[in-house]
Amino acid sequence: MTISMYQASVPIFVQFLAGLSAVLDKAAAFAEAKKVEPSVLLSTRLSPDMFPLVRQVRAATDHAIGACGRLAGAELPTFSNSEATIPELKDRIAKTVDFLKSLKPGQIDGSEGKEIKITFPSGAVREFTGQSLLLNNSLPNFYFHCTTAYDILRHCGVELGKRDFMGTPVKL
Amino acid sequence: MTISMYQASVPIFVQFLAGLSAVLDKAAAFAEAKKVEPSVLLSTRLSPDMFPLVRQVRAATDHAIGACGRLAGAELPTFSNSEATIPELKDRIAKTVDFLKSLKPGQIDGSEGKEIKITFPSGAVREFTGQSLLLNNSLPNFYFHCTTAYDILRHCGVELGKRDFMGTPVKL
Repeated sequence: MTISMYQASVPIFVQFLAGLSAVLDKAAAFAEAKKVEPSVLLSTRLSPDMFPLVRQVRAATDHAIGACGRLAGAELPTFSNSEATIPELKDRIAKTVDFLKSLKPGQIDGSEGKEIKITFPSGAVREFTGQSLLLNNSLPNFYFHCTTAYDILRHCGVELGKRDFMGTPVKL
Repeated sequence: MTISMYQASVPIFVQFLAGLSAVLDKAAAFAEAKKVEPSVLLSTRLSPDMFPLVRQVRAATDHAIGACGRLAGAELPTFSNSEATIPELKDRIAKTVDFLKSLKPGQIDGSEGKEIKITFPSGAVREFTGQSLLLNNSLPNFYFHCTTAYDILRHCGVELGKRDFMGTPVKL
């Protein structure tokens, strides 16, 4: 008995993307209650040279799509990267979840040894196996950005708990 | 082809615990250069009702030990939970890595369907399978605390990059 690549990827990303979307709902409610522009939250950073909230959310979706899409050999959906409101970010998350759910176990299972070469925006090229891409790179990066989005909002005073971050396991 | 429970757990936790230990080295160097007490960093929180850095590090080690130890059916090592310095936290991380490395693939592989019941400090009892404990709970919590430790230090001004968080994949 072992774990399938599908079970280690799609349902996990979907669980935590749903958590991230719910976290953004609480951010929107906080902004309304405090009468602050949501854009203030979206542009908040924990350090001047870290991504603001809006880019943490984009990066989380990018890692989910990049991992599952490449494992499946599917065309990767792209976004405008101009989302500037909470509803636009939630829409990006929803489209990401739709894409992940469109992938079938048969497309992803068996991809652990697949050779995957990624050219990063910097021009650097890195080679992965399906397993190393998922476990050593994409999931940790995904969690990094979901957590930092949560941390930024906690730092802003939004009332969130770990349970919001965790979402709810999904059966797929 | 699939992924083994061992490969999805021990080498991953070891990679990111090594990253966390190196992040603490940079925190120590920062404190020395800036002539601030390291305890100031260790007691920093992103929000008054979040754990300070010292507890983020403890929680990260707890999730790594709790997952791998329970999957293997091994006795879980315990700590004093009184660590108050960076060297003490690094020692806790090192002992955690030693424990994880002491577990053999044969103890963990095949544990995905194992029934695991956990009584939390609150008294709540939750039931998991080995797979749900690892993928839906322990790894996300582990990454949450490693990331928040990193985020706290970035917020304090420590010069860190994502590469420090990521550590280096290990062959085990």
